[in-house]
Amino acid sequence: MTEHNVRIENTLQVLLKDKKYATVRDILVTMNPPDVAAVFAACEPEQMPLLFRLLPKELAAESFVEMEPEEQEALIRGISDSELKQVMAELYVDDAVDIVEEMPANVVQRILAQSDPQMRKEINEILQYPENSAGSVMTTEYVALNPNMTVGDAILRIRRTGVDKETIYTCYVLKNRLLIGTVSVKSLLLAPSDMQTIDSIMESGSGLVTVNTHTDQEEVARMMSKYNLLAIPVLDSDNRMVGIVTFDDAMDVMEDETTEDMEIMAGMTPSDKTYLKSTPWDLFKHRIPWLALLMVSATFTGLIITSFEAALAAQVALTAFIPMLMDTGGNSGSQSSVTVIRALSLGELEFSELPKVIWKEVRTAVLCGLALAVLCFGKIILVDRLLLGNPDITVMVAAVVCLTMAITILCAKVVGCTLPMIAKRLGFDPAVMASPFITTIVDALSLLVYFGIAKALLGL
Amino acid sequence: MTEHNVRIENTLQVLLKDKKYATVRDILVTMNPPDVAAVFAACEPEQMPLLFRLLPKELAAESFVEMEPEEQEALIRGISDSELKQVMAELYVDDAVDIVEEMPANVVQRILAQSDPQMRKEINEILQYPENSAGSVMTTEYVALNPNMTVGDAILRIRRTGVDKETIYTCYVLKNRLLIGTVSVKSLLLAPSDMQTIDSIMESGSGLVTVNTHTDQEEVARMMSKYNLLAIPVLDSDNRMVGIVTFDDAMDVMEDETTEDMEIMAGMTPSDKTYLKSTPWDLFKHRIPWLALLMVSATFTGLIITSFEAALAAQVALTAFIPMLMDTGGNSGSQSSVTVIRALSLGELEFSELPKVIWKEVRTAVLCGLALAVLCFGKIILVDRLLLGNPDITVMVAAVVCLTMAITILCAKVVGCTLPMIAKRLGFDPAVMASPFITTIVDALSLLVYFGIAKALLGL
Repeated sequence: MTEHNVRIENTLQVLLKDKKYATVRDILVTMNPPDVAAVFAACEPEQMPLLFRLLPKELAAESFVEMEPEEQEALIRGISDSELKQVMAELYVDDAVDIVEEMPANVVQRILAQSDPQMRKEINEILQYPENSAGSVMTTEYVALNPNMTVGDAILRIRRTGVDKETIYTCYVLKNRLLIGTVSVKSLLLAPSDMQTIDSIMESGSGLVTVNTHTDQEEVARMMSKYNLLAIPVLDSDNRMVGIVTFDDAMDVMEDETTEDMEIMAGMTPSDKTYLKSTPWDLFKHRIPWLALLMVSATFTGLIITSFEAALAAQVALTAFIPMLMDTGGNSGSQSSVTVIRALSLGELEFSELPKVIWKEVRTAVLCGLALAVLCFGKIILVDRLLLGNPDITVMVAAVVCLTMAITILCAKVVGCTLPMIAKRLGFDPAVMASPFITTIVDALSLLVYFGIAKALLGL
Repeated sequence: MTEHNVRIENTLQVLLKDKKYATVRDILVTMNPPDVAAVFAACEPEQMPLLFRLLPKELAAESFVEMEPEEQEALIRGISDSELKQVMAELYVDDAVDIVEEMPANVVQRILAQSDPQMRKEINEILQYPENSAGSVMTTEYVALNPNMTVGDAILRIRRTGVDKETIYTCYVLKNRLLIGTVSVKSLLLAPSDMQTIDSIMESGSGLVTVNTHTDQEEVARMMSKYNLLAIPVLDSDNRMVGIVTFDDAMDVMEDETTEDMEIMAGMTPSDKTYLKSTPWDLFKHRIPWLALLMVSATFTGLIITSFEAALAAQVALTAFIPMLMDTGGNSGSQSSVTVIRALSLGELEFSELPKVIWKEVRTAVLCGLALAVLCFGKIILVDRLLLGNPDITVMVAAVVCLTMAITILCAKVVGCTLPMIAKRLGFDPAVMASPFITTIVDALSLLVYFGIAKALLGL
């Protein structure tokens, strides 16, 4: 797909230079909006208005929606007010809001000035919902039906009003602005008779899945995925229907939230920009806070080592195993924390299940700890002592290392599964409690265990 | 949602015990299939057939699809052949395949025996496609139209045949089994006249987005999300249309692939079971391979420390900074690798962009390295030397530590961004090159740099 577009973009550049506009237009109309947007991304800003004017009205608007904010801004600055007005007339409200949210204030003013009054009102309403809420990603355009309409009436209504709606496939049955049921176009088309009333074929009752304007967008996407919904109705605090979130937005939310989770789990503050669009300075700003915090908190591990300096000096061989113990502890803890973070974000786990989770992790830790301790003992004796002939590494040293490993794994797994659940309970993002954070805690624990056992068994 | 179901499940248990079956049925019919499935998950296996018989035919089949394999198996073993036959008649082919894939052989034989011959044939066909390919997740039931039909004919055809199709909203225009265009029900309903022909309103040409039966399911989901598609057509190697993948399956694929990526990135082999369903033994099997591999590979870091034992003995203070240097290196490397892994999996990056990526990471590393080195120098002098009064920590020691830190961050970021891209190029999953793997490599690098610089600057 991408390679195909790369070649097309070069061809289009040559054609534009030769002023073969009709040919450029012929090529563009065969393309999908996201691919047309990619062509714009490869253009110089001066070329954009020219290229944009070659597109048929609908494709122009659809491609505009798919562009990155940089291209949208360059384009808005390059086209006339009347052209902008035409674009705005073609947009769905939720897409218009997405664009407005990314633009600087003076561009926003121009956009709002060129929208019709109804759309301006709806854009402003949606802009008032908190970021990442259902209200902020919904569209206010949907097909509303009355319960006492016939199937024939309903199809007629869809035919008359559907052109402006992002989806017509699920229609919402309202009574005094309250949602009382949903009807799919499939059930309208498959209804045995055109004279049946809507309330006789609609889905209603407690099976109706809805969200509130303030529901988090991640929860919205999860519910749509769970119930296989094309669109989900959004209600306000008085239970009146105010809009719908459509499946394409839910898919985008799932992608964005996954990226955000992964960034947080790797110790970065989340970023809206794609990697290739981010400057080193952007990346620096998102990465330095956690690096600095974790570096400073490593002071504790330093202190622990310093306070056992005498013991280490007496048994220099012990130092060689510090990285292995720390890494194994960190890896064990990350495994548990990432598993639990993911289960929390899929809604599979609740705080009340913490004892069950800990018990599961303890048993897993015992299995992992035993297996690794045995493997490690063998490795130390065979490789470090016999093969490499290091006389400092006695059987007792090996025992200290392996015992430490088993205990560290146990601590790491318990810490790793507990912290994300506590974070969630306290209203924080559990993803913060992933590798980097867990590693720092487990490092300190593993060193304390190591030196404690070394002192006891080796009598240092 | 979940809490609500928990309470309903308790009520249902009481009602079942009291044999109030009519009431149980009245409650169940108001519920959505995924919630009914949750009720079954909370039941004893003996209760399941009884509960299942209370459900209306369609809800029974839809709930069956939403259950976990354990419940499905218990249920199939508990119901009669004719009941199973009824369920199979209600299922879409792709759902039937999902179930068959999870069942033991003797259950599969019973399922196939109770499916009608056409479905049996289609199940067997889909089962032959490689795991995780478009062919394995597609359904073979879709609405096919002829290009010279009128809009009226097409609507009639949908009304007659649509009931068995998972989606009717995108119809596929075929000529000699080759896909020549798509028509949405929206454009059928909004067409100005019922007498227009399908080929005059269909979308066609190079804008037609299709996948091959062997396309990876993650790529399928990404394309559906990029092009906002409700369903994507699947072609065989002769470009004949064989099925469609629908948006609900794409959403499931996105969730599963994210979980898999996160598991791999945390050093686990991916698992199909949910966390709460996994036994400690399951978790152990998925976690031990990487733990063992990474533990053994830490032998190298041990060797490096051993070979610098004399230097460490001469300057014991150096040991205290080992954990901080290793962790900061590991964290820096993870940040880069996770960012690159995610960009690769979103299709934002290609191998040809490796030089650009390295250059971006080098500049970011210089910024992060400088900032952290300054911060670290201040911390060592203020906290470790002055506040804690450790006389071993000289300005030269601080300089060695900070210089090591800056160089380690540079190495870590370059290694972190390069390895995932090389892995992808070689056909491996880039997610393997995340924290645990990168940490092990960066540990060794940081120790070599540390002791190298210490020898040079401190003359050990």
